[in-house]
Amino acid sequence: MFISFEGTEGVGKTTLIQRIYAHLEQQGKQVVLTREPGGTPMAEQIRSLLLSVNHEESMCNDTELLLMYAARAQHLAQVIEPALTQGQTVLCDRFTDASFAYQCAGRGLSQEKLELLNDNFVSRMPNFTFWLDAPIDIGMNRARERGALDRFEQEKFSFFEKVRSGYEQLWQKYPERIKRLDATQTPDQVFAQALAYLDAV
Amino acid sequence: MFISFEGTEGVGKTTLIQRIYAHLEQQGKQVVLTREPGGTPMAEQIRSLLLSVNHEESMCNDTELLLMYAARAQHLAQVIEPALTQGQTVLCDRFTDASFAYQCAGRGLSQEKLELLNDNFVSRMPNFTFWLDAPIDIGMNRARERGALDRFEQEKFSFFEKVRSGYEQLWQKYPERIKRLDATQTPDQVFAQALAYLDAV
Repeated sequence: MFISFEGTEGVGKTTLIQRIYAHLEQQGKQVVLTREPGGTPMAEQIRSLLLSVNHEESMCNDTELLLMYAARAQHLAQVIEPALTQGQTVLCDRFTDASFAYQCAGRGLSQEKLELLNDNFVSRMPNFTFWLDAPIDIGMNRARERGALDRFEQEKFSFFEKVRSGYEQLWQKYPERIKRLDATQTPDQVFAQALAYLDAV
Repeated sequence: MFISFEGTEGVGKTTLIQRIYAHLEQQGKQVVLTREPGGTPMAEQIRSLLLSVNHEESMCNDTELLLMYAARAQHLAQVIEPALTQGQTVLCDRFTDASFAYQCAGRGLSQEKLELLNDNFVSRMPNFTFWLDAPIDIGMNRARERGALDRFEQEKFSFFEKVRSGYEQLWQKYPERIKRLDATQTPDQVFAQALAYLDAV
C-alpha cells in the first residue's frame, strides 16, 4: 500500500502523516515514512537545490520540473519500490500530484510535459492520496510561524491559489484515488476523517 | 552559430575548444565558451552531483538522465539562447549527443526516453558538432594523467567502448552536422582539420 499526502504549505500534512504512521505501527504494520522531493541522500541533495533561496540566478520552470523527476526516479528506485516489494506500507509527503499542482497549475508548465515524464519515469502511482485542503491564508500563516521560508514558500498568494485549484482539479478527476480532507478542522478531526477513509479501503 | 564538441575522456576537447575560441576572437567574433553538464552556477551544482564519487547510494540511470536535462534546460535558457540571440558564437563542450552516447549507448537507456526529452526540453540543437575520436585506451591514459577520476571517468573500458560506438552511430546518422576529427593526431593537426571544416561552413 502506497499512500501520498498532498496540499499547499501549512495545511498540517506532517502532523497527519506522523499520526497515521503511529497508528499503522500500532497495528503491527511495517511502515516507511518518506517525502518528496527527497527521500534518499541523493534526492535530498536535489531537494536542497530546489528549495534554496540562495541561487545566483532564477531557476527555469523546465529545470525545476526535471529536478523534481530526477529526485523522484531515485526515490522510487531506492526507497518506494523496495519497500512495497517487501510488503511494507509507504507514507509519502507529496508525489506526482504536487508536480501537477505546483509546476503545471502554479507555474503554468504544460500538462503534456508532465504526463510524458509520468508515463516514462514514474514506475508506480499511489494507491491512495489524502489532499489536505484549507484556504491559502490559513496555511501561509502556519508556514510563516515555522520560520524562514523556502523558495516555494516565498511565492505570492496568487501562486498558491493556482496550486490549490490544481489540487482541486486532480481531486475531481481522480475521485477514487484522491480523498479531500478539510484541513481547517482540528488535527484530531482531520486524523479521524483520514482514518475513516483508510478503514474503508 | 552554435558549435558543440563531443568525445570520450581525454581526446583533447578542451585544447581544441580553446584554440578555436582564440582563433574566432582574433577574427573579431564575440564568442561564448561553455560546457555541459554545467555552464551556469545552478547547472554547475547539478554537474557536481552528477560527477561526484562520494554518494552514499548509486545513481539510477533515469536520475542521471533527468539531471543532465535539468542542467541543460537551465544552460539553454540562461546562457546559450541569450548569446545566440545577441549574435554571439557559442562553443559548447558536450551537448545532447553526449546524452545519447553516455546514457543510451553507454548505460543502455532507451533512445525513446532521450528523444522525448530532446523534443520537449531542448529548444535548440547545435548547427555544427565536432566529434573527437580516438581509441579508448589513448584517451583514458590522458584522463588518468590529469588526476582523480570523476564518476564517469571511473567507468570500465567496456563502457567507453559503447560510448564511442554511440558517437559513431550519431556521426553516421547526422553526417551534415557531425564532423569526425582524428584525435590520435597532434593538437596542431586536429586544430587544422577543424579549421578546414569551419572555413567550409
